[in-house]
Amino acid sequence: MIKTLSSDDARGLLERGRIGRLGCIAENEPYVVPVSYLFEDDCVYVHTMPGLKVTSLRANPRACLQVDEVRDEYHWKSAIGFGAYEEVTDPGERERVLDGLLERFPRLTPAESISAASGSLAPPIVFRLRLHRMTGLAED
Amino acid sequence: MIKTLSSDDARGLLERGRIGRLGCIAENEPYVVPVSYLFEDDCVYVHTMPGLKVTSLRANPRACLQVDEVRDEYHWKSAIGFGAYEEVTDPGERERVLDGLLERFPRLTPAESISAASGSLAPPIVFRLRLHRMTGLAED
Repeated sequence: MIKTLSSDDARGLLERGRIGRLGCIAENEPYVVPVSYLFEDDCVYVHTMPGLKVTSLRANPRACLQVDEVRDEYHWKSAIGFGAYEEVTDPGERERVLDGLLERFPRLTPAESISAASGSLAPPIVFRLRLHRMTGLAED
Repeated sequence: MIKTLSSDDARGLLERGRIGRLGCIAENEPYVVPVSYLFEDDCVYVHTMPGLKVTSLRANPRACLQVDEVRDEYHWKSAIGFGAYEEVTDPGERERVLDGLLERFPRLTPAESISAASGSLAPPIVFRLRLHRMTGLAED
């Protein structure tokens, strides 16, 4: 039986999750990529290298993060949070977010060396989705 | 190091996968939901009950299916196939697809009883995305 999650249950799933699927719109087509994220005060924080995701989100900031806990095809929970893309550019806030991501993902490449590791000279992008709506479904 | 998957590698990941994340556009916002699917001849087949996913896809048929194999945050592959929503309405083809889904997911509720199990009187929807482009990324 499929049921709708309450907003609190959806928030709980988003808070517990570590890897989610970010949905955005790239040239009028839906686009989905996995991301590691930090959840804080109803915001999702992600850091990434410049690429299609960032280009698309700058052009159309509407985005969602979908997270699920799937036991099998018939026992699963899925939550989705909707928000708008906001780039974090303030140096102090960037540092705070990057520290938080490093704490959550200790093996994460430190910000200083991401550019080198990815073969890019561009600095990593830090962004947030401020979630204005959280919902979800579950089957058990 | 993040690298781009070839179209063949992306197809392989989509073929192996069982659960993917379907991306579509619902009222101008990206929307992502997990689905069990069947991959055949560069088409993805899904069956579902009427709901936001189907309503959105009927209004805007552009869709994608994202599938990943994640070992951890730093070792993962993600493929995405882009296609348009097509409802499968021919009775013979519906039966063939539903049989294929049942074969792949033996514990799947048989089509005849899905409506009853979901508490809905509406018949299940069978649809396909005919993928016109497959791409992906991997980090290892």
